[in-house]
Amino acid sequence: MAKIGAIITIDEAMQLALAEAKKGAGFTSPNPLVGAVVLDKNNKLLSVDYHKNYGGPHAEVNALNKLNDRQLEGAKIIVTLEPCAHEGKTPSCAKKLATLPISTVIYAVEDPNPLVAGKGLEILKESGKEVIHLSHYENEAIELAEIFFTNQKLKRPFVSLKVASSLDGYIGLQSGESQWITGEKARNYGHFLRATHDAICVGAKTFIVDNPKLNIRHNDFPNKKNKVIVLDSEGNLSDKIKSSNLIKYHSLEDILIIHPEKIKNKPEQDLKLIPVKYSQGFDVEDLLDKLFEKNIFSLLIEGGAKTYQLFLESKKFDRLFCFIAPSLIGQKNGLSWTKDLVTRSLSEKLSFDKLKAIPLDPDILLTMKTSDNH
Amino acid sequence: MAKIGAIITIDEAMQLALAEAKKGAGFTSPNPLVGAVVLDKNNKLLSVDYHKNYGGPHAEVNALNKLNDRQLEGAKIIVTLEPCAHEGKTPSCAKKLATLPISTVIYAVEDPNPLVAGKGLEILKESGKEVIHLSHYENEAIELAEIFFTNQKLKRPFVSLKVASSLDGYIGLQSGESQWITGEKARNYGHFLRATHDAICVGAKTFIVDNPKLNIRHNDFPNKKNKVIVLDSEGNLSDKIKSSNLIKYHSLEDILIIHPEKIKNKPEQDLKLIPVKYSQGFDVEDLLDKLFEKNIFSLLIEGGAKTYQLFLESKKFDRLFCFIAPSLIGQKNGLSWTKDLVTRSLSEKLSFDKLKAIPLDPDILLTMKTSDNH
Repeated sequence: MAKIGAIITIDEAMQLALAEAKKGAGFTSPNPLVGAVVLDKNNKLLSVDYHKNYGGPHAEVNALNKLNDRQLEGAKIIVTLEPCAHEGKTPSCAKKLATLPISTVIYAVEDPNPLVAGKGLEILKESGKEVIHLSHYENEAIELAEIFFTNQKLKRPFVSLKVASSLDGYIGLQSGESQWITGEKARNYGHFLRATHDAICVGAKTFIVDNPKLNIRHNDFPNKKNKVIVLDSEGNLSDKIKSSNLIKYHSLEDILIIHPEKIKNKPEQDLKLIPVKYSQGFDVEDLLDKLFEKNIFSLLIEGGAKTYQLFLESKKFDRLFCFIAPSLIGQKNGLSWTKDLVTRSLSEKLSFDKLKAIPLDPDILLTMKTSDNH
Repeated sequence: MAKIGAIITIDEAMQLALAEAKKGAGFTSPNPLVGAVVLDKNNKLLSVDYHKNYGGPHAEVNALNKLNDRQLEGAKIIVTLEPCAHEGKTPSCAKKLATLPISTVIYAVEDPNPLVAGKGLEILKESGKEVIHLSHYENEAIELAEIFFTNQKLKRPFVSLKVASSLDGYIGLQSGESQWITGEKARNYGHFLRATHDAICVGAKTFIVDNPKLNIRHNDFPNKKNKVIVLDSEGNLSDKIKSSNLIKYHSLEDILIIHPEKIKNKPEQDLKLIPVKYSQGFDVEDLLDKLFEKNIFSLLIEGGAKTYQLFLESKKFDRLFCFIAPSLIGQKNGLSWTKDLVTRSLSEKLSFDKLKAIPLDPDILLTMKTSDNH
């Protein structure tokens, strides 16, 4: 990694900004992850920074705050996302940049919000800055801020499915035995995923059989609280939840129980109950609308098989995280995570793209995107 | 990669030798893959070479042949495997090295054959050479020559299982539809695996349903012929084989048909029929003994589910190659490659180690070793 004071290329600067941005993962929701790098007029690296937390200064401001006007004379700023045009929790970054003696603004992707897309760039151009789109980093920059892009473009939470299976696709035994398929590094990464999604969702059976805690147990997020969602298709879990691990590890207001809208709630319950359209299964579109209204911008689905099925069939999900253990369980007693999924011919199978592998010795994480969402 | 004339470290030299050795893959059987690097007395890289083909000169000889005695004064040779002590197809490498003005021989692992292990090192020490075991490369050097190590230590062929499945572990549909789960790069790598194993083995059902060619279609191996083995559990496939694709793409002597030893062969057949012990399924130990006798030193099992099962249950296999496509098929219509495998409790599941991922866009190859063979 380049050090402050080194002469680097624009490509190296963008790669640095993309890497730096990731340090904000888990702290910026609903804002995107953004990184920024400042080079002086001779391409000497002056500063690197990122958007650290929601409500805090944007990446550009963090990167610029350390520098004085003399240093910025003729400098370039390289950002992963178009500088914002609007005043929100913080002043407009584009307007701030317009007042500084920098000469050039280089970005990887425009803001996904059609109402503001390009407006930051316009402000910068009008102020006389050279504005350069480094388009070969566009896909990477979208992926970096994929939750934000999905929120802006589809007006719904970003949905991830997290599965831990054997090599042959079994998440446990049909008998219900399901613990410890993957090892410690994979489980730790699973907690990182919990920390980087606003809410974790499980089905009724997983809640009943596993009595899961669903909290975040990860050294980088010692104090982070997350929301949990239980899909209560029978509308009868409220009492069980009150004596479960969920109640021990979460505040009442962080537990959301989804029930079919036709089943009436008992008025005395102090849990958050959310009615959702239901026929054979929950209507995923309605479910995601309701969660988005409650400021849940990203959702991690942790099973079981029926809940995976619901989201797989709806096609309203964005990313798969498959932790795969180097082991075989076999179909005779194994519980397949796609046990109810039907594929009539191979040309019809559900396909994903942008497969990436992350080694988590002794296991491996395969992650990929749904092909057609954006 | 270091260039001739560069000053490199011993570690870099060993890494270079390990990488160079792999160029022999598919051409050296039953000899191991071996690489050799020569450094002069100042650690300047003089030459890099490998064992190119069975019967040809060993890696050490190829690396040394380019150099004269003046260059070798005080030089070091770095080899992935202990130099051989015995005269075989070629003269003893240890004896040759003993006569040269090199000062040091550095190796990663001893010969696995207990009859000759250490003898090459003794010859070298007696001749006054400094002999150094670079033990932190031992595992990698064993893996490089894993076929040879298995042959020498277990006196049976090295057995690999090759599977191409969806993410959820299905190799096709129960209806029999099975083509094109993985893409072109994965299929090309599959042909590389065919080229680097002496024989390919399929079960009766795969032979009947797919009528496979089982030949090598890979640019690096334009003329290579391989043996094919069909597990004919009913002992009635000879006629079908005579009108199959196998006969079009292979010489008669390269097709081996395994049948239960109690079923008598028709004497008029000109195919190679090999009787093997059978009760409920073929006895894998007897099968591997028979194939080893016929100079088959490595075996690639290509399915189907019943044949995978036979080898999985026997535990007499060494490596899994799982090509995984970023797609889901689902259990309802999917054909699991472990459909008959039984795991009574998760602690009993078949486990592997040394998982490695090789990206083959859009798919991925996960390869791993059985845990307990050597």
